[in-house]
Amino acid sequence: MKSPGSTPSHLRIVVVNPVTAPATAPGGESGCEQDSALAELARRSAALRIGLLESGYDLVASLPADVFLPERIAQLQPDMIIVDSESDARDILEHIVIATRDERRPIVLFTEDDAPASMNAALDAGVSAYIVAGLHAGRVKSVLDVALARFRREQKLLGELLDTRKKLAERKVVDRAKGLVMTRYGLSEEQAYQRLRSMAMNKNMKLAEIAQRLIDVEDLLG
Amino acid sequence: MKSPGSTPSHLRIVVVNPVTAPATAPGGESGCEQDSALAELARRSAALRIGLLESGYDLVASLPADVFLPERIAQLQPDMIIVDSESDARDILEHIVIATRDERRPIVLFTEDDAPASMNAALDAGVSAYIVAGLHAGRVKSVLDVALARFRREQKLLGELLDTRKKLAERKVVDRAKGLVMTRYGLSEEQAYQRLRSMAMNKNMKLAEIAQRLIDVEDLLG
Repeated sequence: MKSPGSTPSHLRIVVVNPVTAPATAPGGESGCEQDSALAELARRSAALRIGLLESGYDLVASLPADVFLPERIAQLQPDMIIVDSESDARDILEHIVIATRDERRPIVLFTEDDAPASMNAALDAGVSAYIVAGLHAGRVKSVLDVALARFRREQKLLGELLDTRKKLAERKVVDRAKGLVMTRYGLSEEQAYQRLRSMAMNKNMKLAEIAQRLIDVEDLLG
Repeated sequence: MKSPGSTPSHLRIVVVNPVTAPATAPGGESGCEQDSALAELARRSAALRIGLLESGYDLVASLPADVFLPERIAQLQPDMIIVDSESDARDILEHIVIATRDERRPIVLFTEDDAPASMNAALDAGVSAYIVAGLHAGRVKSVLDVALARFRREQKLLGELLDTRKKLAERKVVDRAKGLVMTRYGLSEEQAYQRLRSMAMNKNMKLAEIAQRLIDVEDLLG
């Protein structure tokens, strides 16, 4: 992901829309109901575009939420994804989760769906901002600013958690290997640690890697 | 903190307001400007109260952001704190940070201040929702729902981080003590660990505590 600058114009945004039935779909709903639903959809879409335009963002694409979405997002590498979904967004979010699994990106969801289950599903999917009935052109920029600040904070926290987990896992491996070396060669803890360190340096491996190899050999020999 | 139920009426809410100049302040601004500012303040306050009321929340107090705030919040034990601050909320947030330092609570901030510095200060202060120009009675409930879901998620993540950090720190202590026991008594790693465990059980202490004590003694004796 490009590092977005402080000026919004540097933020490259992709808007994801629900896959809607074609306007000319025959039968089913009355033309009148369909017209008013389409008009509402058009109003929402316009408010979002105006908000993005007026705030100087770079709207690089407006994509449907289909199976091609992950690939398109991988190609476009946007700094932020905005989902505009009047009703239940779970179908859309499924595609977004796949599209951002390997590289997380800030996701903003504008919706009219205030069901707690939908909120939780969205937060589970990694949504940084879940905005109910708040799609007004004048507010778009501040919503996006808050979402971005929150996303960065969450990424930092998640990074710290993964880092600490990794340290703990590596420590377990290194300490077990150190114990093996202490017992086998009758060394003190410090001596065993130095022995492991020089083994790692000689083999040009990380300490945890050489430790894991020692443990594997020990397990193999019983 | 009480565990809030899924129905909003169980959520006990405290609203924190800026400490405003008294309405009868002499001189200074023209009466007209002051009147319009006061009218806007009243409108915001009404929108928030109507939103809370219509959604069935339990508004337990409306407090000024002063030095007594931490004490009042400790007494009231609200499930959520709402800050209504038209402009720069940093002064208010300082009091809130102190009030929620020992026991984190979800904080929702409604403001008209869209400066990125203010947003970052608010997120630093532990704000779960920073809402710019979004104070409308009809939206209050969904904003609060999202804030609560987000707060719980953040608390879980923070809890995991603290837990992993603690495990790592304890592991370091236990492993160092194990090394001491191995060297001193010529034991294998497993034997040293069992020795430490039985010492801890005999003294009715945690493994990490007895390990720390062993290390302290060793450091003392050199």
